[in-house]
Amino acid sequence: MDEQQRLQERLRVARGEAPADLVLRGGRVVNLFTGEVEEVDVAVHDGVVAGLGTYQGQERVDLKGAWLVPGFIDGHLHVESTLLGPAQLARVLAPKGTSALVADPHEIANVLGLAGVRAMLAASEGLPVSFFFNAPSCVPATHLETAGARLEADDLVGLLDHPRLLGLAEVMNFPGLVAGDPGVLAKVLAFAGRPIDGHAPLLSGPALNAYLAAGPESDHECTRADEAAEKLKRGMWLMIREGTSAHNLADLLPLVTPASERRCLLVSDDRHPDTLAHHGHLDDILRLAVARGLPPLTALRLVTLNPARRFGLARRGALAPGWAADLVVLDDLKDFRVLSTYQAGRLVAAEGQCLHPCATSFPATARGTMRLDPLSPDSFRVAAAGGRVRVIGLVPGQLITEHLIEDTPQAEGWLAADRSRGLARLTVIERHGGGGHAAHGLVNGLGLKGGALASSVAHDSHNLVVAGMDEQSMLTAAERVRTLGGGLVAALGQRVLAELPLPLAGLMSDQDLPPLLADLEELRAASDVICSHPEPFMPLSFVCLPVIPHLKLTDRGLVDVDAFAPVELFLP
Amino acid sequence: MDEQQRLQERLRVARGEAPADLVLRGGRVVNLFTGEVEEVDVAVHDGVVAGLGTYQGQERVDLKGAWLVPGFIDGHLHVESTLLGPAQLARVLAPKGTSALVADPHEIANVLGLAGVRAMLAASEGLPVSFFFNAPSCVPATHLETAGARLEADDLVGLLDHPRLLGLAEVMNFPGLVAGDPGVLAKVLAFAGRPIDGHAPLLSGPALNAYLAAGPESDHECTRADEAAEKLKRGMWLMIREGTSAHNLADLLPLVTPASERRCLLVSDDRHPDTLAHHGHLDDILRLAVARGLPPLTALRLVTLNPARRFGLARRGALAPGWAADLVVLDDLKDFRVLSTYQAGRLVAAEGQCLHPCATSFPATARGTMRLDPLSPDSFRVAAAGGRVRVIGLVPGQLITEHLIEDTPQAEGWLAADRSRGLARLTVIERHGGGGHAAHGLVNGLGLKGGALASSVAHDSHNLVVAGMDEQSMLTAAERVRTLGGGLVAALGQRVLAELPLPLAGLMSDQDLPPLLADLEELRAASDVICSHPEPFMPLSFVCLPVIPHLKLTDRGLVDVDAFAPVELFLP
Repeated sequence: MDEQQRLQERLRVARGEAPADLVLRGGRVVNLFTGEVEEVDVAVHDGVVAGLGTYQGQERVDLKGAWLVPGFIDGHLHVESTLLGPAQLARVLAPKGTSALVADPHEIANVLGLAGVRAMLAASEGLPVSFFFNAPSCVPATHLETAGARLEADDLVGLLDHPRLLGLAEVMNFPGLVAGDPGVLAKVLAFAGRPIDGHAPLLSGPALNAYLAAGPESDHECTRADEAAEKLKRGMWLMIREGTSAHNLADLLPLVTPASERRCLLVSDDRHPDTLAHHGHLDDILRLAVARGLPPLTALRLVTLNPARRFGLARRGALAPGWAADLVVLDDLKDFRVLSTYQAGRLVAAEGQCLHPCATSFPATARGTMRLDPLSPDSFRVAAAGGRVRVIGLVPGQLITEHLIEDTPQAEGWLAADRSRGLARLTVIERHGGGGHAAHGLVNGLGLKGGALASSVAHDSHNLVVAGMDEQSMLTAAERVRTLGGGLVAALGQRVLAELPLPLAGLMSDQDLPPLLADLEELRAASDVICSHPEPFMPLSFVCLPVIPHLKLTDRGLVDVDAFAPVELFLP
Repeated sequence: MDEQQRLQERLRVARGEAPADLVLRGGRVVNLFTGEVEEVDVAVHDGVVAGLGTYQGQERVDLKGAWLVPGFIDGHLHVESTLLGPAQLARVLAPKGTSALVADPHEIANVLGLAGVRAMLAASEGLPVSFFFNAPSCVPATHLETAGARLEADDLVGLLDHPRLLGLAEVMNFPGLVAGDPGVLAKVLAFAGRPIDGHAPLLSGPALNAYLAAGPESDHECTRADEAAEKLKRGMWLMIREGTSAHNLADLLPLVTPASERRCLLVSDDRHPDTLAHHGHLDDILRLAVARGLPPLTALRLVTLNPARRFGLARRGALAPGWAADLVVLDDLKDFRVLSTYQAGRLVAAEGQCLHPCATSFPATARGTMRLDPLSPDSFRVAAAGGRVRVIGLVPGQLITEHLIEDTPQAEGWLAADRSRGLARLTVIERHGGGGHAAHGLVNGLGLKGGALASSVAHDSHNLVVAGMDEQSMLTAAERVRTLGGGLVAALGQRVLAELPLPLAGLMSDQDLPPLLADLEELRAASDVICSHPEPFMPLSFVCLPVIPHLKLTDRGLVDVDAFAPVELFLP
């Protein structure tokens, strides 16, 4: 059937002269344009809403007073953070009312380059959640680390041939952009006229003006109300993030006013699989926002109309004739319990279960990406070369770290952990086939009491990061991650306590959520034995990210993020 | 200087390391994102806002407490209705704070086809007001009239190569679109993904659903609050029109709520030159809206952020780093008196005067478009063929007409005017070289006491329309319009009382506003002698438009717009 015929048929249905594929009746239909609630039939035909009013349908569903709202759209997240592949993730998100998401695939791009982005696009085709992507702007994130690939402007524009590639993903190298780094400028110029996302924690004043004047239009890194107020004022889309580690909702919600509302989004950014399983996705964030006093229809606009508009997703995000029939049936507008989800007019989830096959799988090129030689005890040995030492201080609930200076903990002239002061050893080892060089440091606040934790998820270069209280445990954990081809491992001495394989680029599981959760549960039980932090792998995966203040460790060494420069571990 | 160098320079200015071209200080800077008013410097460099804060500039302007707001954007107007060419219009609008407009060139397209649209694009290049256009969707508007051209979908898509051609202009053939006319469907399908404007007076229910499901996204024809409420609810952008003839502001303003505000625009559609001169453009509509209680910042958003967003005009409509430095300095937010206007950072108007040369002119192809043979008294003679007759009843302040039936006024067996019942004769003569056939009718409410008025402006086909109380006067007026090559003429008997030449397609003057107003003043003085209507040429120019209910007259005869079909003049 050609376009004309399809449109003719849609018109016949809209005019009421032919039955719709589906008519949803008896619902409380939420109108986000005007803030009204209507009790009308919604006629769905050929994937779109054909009309609202009184309609006949080949299939009729009585919503029995439930609320009908547009499908939720997450304007910013990283698929890789969920540890799930796109198909497995869609299976989780569809029952939670998510209809579309805009992902930045920079994790996999740091491991596999353009091939990783193309793999993500291929693996997300035809799912019950529409996966849109932005081209990763910062691979590697900075010049202060070694990634598996380097993507320049010319590489990125090649991605624009894909219909689900929208724009340029978060420009995390904000110091580079503000300073006029030619490579970063080339990227924002290449994406002029397309959406360009920002990432500019605590940026303010003239530097913020410069950043905005160069292109980025949004920010999801605000942690403070004054910071967010300035960014909104200067024209940024405010993406209010409520992730697993980063909880910004409470601080930023007061900024959502009738004037500013249209420029605000609720996003998840990084949600861990058990957060998705036990709390939810945007349904959870909606619940939290409304519990904090945001009017329900405003909250809904922040995950429907606004993200659609921010990314130019035409005819998505509301319930209107000619718009995509991405619909969610809700029990109420308080708990946001999702009864069923329709994508393009098809029932894709009901009663918490995904009804769509989600049959895509990841290309084999994404496997076997731990490209480094076997490790030895020497890999972790560091001479104590100064009386004082820099320490990465974790801040509970935030990605920002403190830049601490402590007396050097040592044992027989070697740098050592110090449980009494909460100091664990930290090592980052290059794993992309670049020779496997390593850098060392200390971290405070991880809660390790003994043993070690290792991970191939280490933003954004995803080298092999290991935190531990002794070198043998660190070796055991890191070696196991290597031989697994990527994953998360807890070890004590020579014994692996638990492990979660992440065979896809060392970032994602190839399992569905329930077995993944079982593995994670085992891993948590093991790490609980050796660590008091409830989620130690989350901060561990962010201690390498040198675009979030203040002190970080990459495979090249410690980075003072405020100075955007390497610093020595030891001080005199 | 290449793009990189320009951006580097902008960054230096934004960072405060190099002086801006221009710094505006001492102003009350209106922030439309958050609804705040800030007292900050605005640094402008290379056409864009580089930063807000404290800045040094090569040129400094002290705004002395005046208000600084983004330039106004008219989301829907017809250049031709102003009777001015684009350059002459820009010279009028820039001092009134208008920075951009989105025009539908369907008037000139009905006379000259694609060549007319191309002429409009060429004549509007490099002006102090940015002229954007949509491709005219309805040339001719209907099959019930003869225009100078016929534009199909294939013709229209050819225009998309022009950077100032945005989308598809008002789909006035709403009955055709709702009914699935293949030619109309081809047009909306060809512009899928681009802005598509609507025009659907009084459309409602399933027919409205069908219209929207097919593509149009906006409406500027609402005259009633309930009509506008339904359209907003169904996802249309509500363009609240306050033109010379059509005054919809008072009725529709109550629909602008915090929820709906973002979907509303204030537009002028059709403003006559003396309305522009004596009342203004968007500055006037802002004044009226605020006087009726709309908060000033909301009103401003309706002519800045909202039209920019509706048409995807990137980085226009607000005052932020990296956004176009289209700025207006206002005396206050009540009278909206414009002190000065900046376009891309250049002062283009001050103290009511345009400072830009506006040097473009219209191509010669737009002249000599009255393609019909000399007329004779026979051209206007109609036998009275029935005892009753249909009469077009004008409605004060609206474009909608009444469909009246009266006893036939006659003289010696010929149809005649009847001053006692306010009935004037009406004749429409084809003028595009198609043979010059004519159709006849009667109009009530034009206020003619004697003589005749003739016009080559007769929406949308722009045939030659003549209203008169006797045949000799009608002949004199119509013949003078013909020999002028287009224009407006008042005549009494054999004498031309006054005339306004409109040599550009018979639609526009080639003069500046002041001499045009002098001609219009003379024309008005003359028409005041023979007519009690204060602006008789405005309703006269709309009595031919068969897409606005209820009864209209084209060169093919009377049209019952509700039935969308021709009807006989006489009834038994």
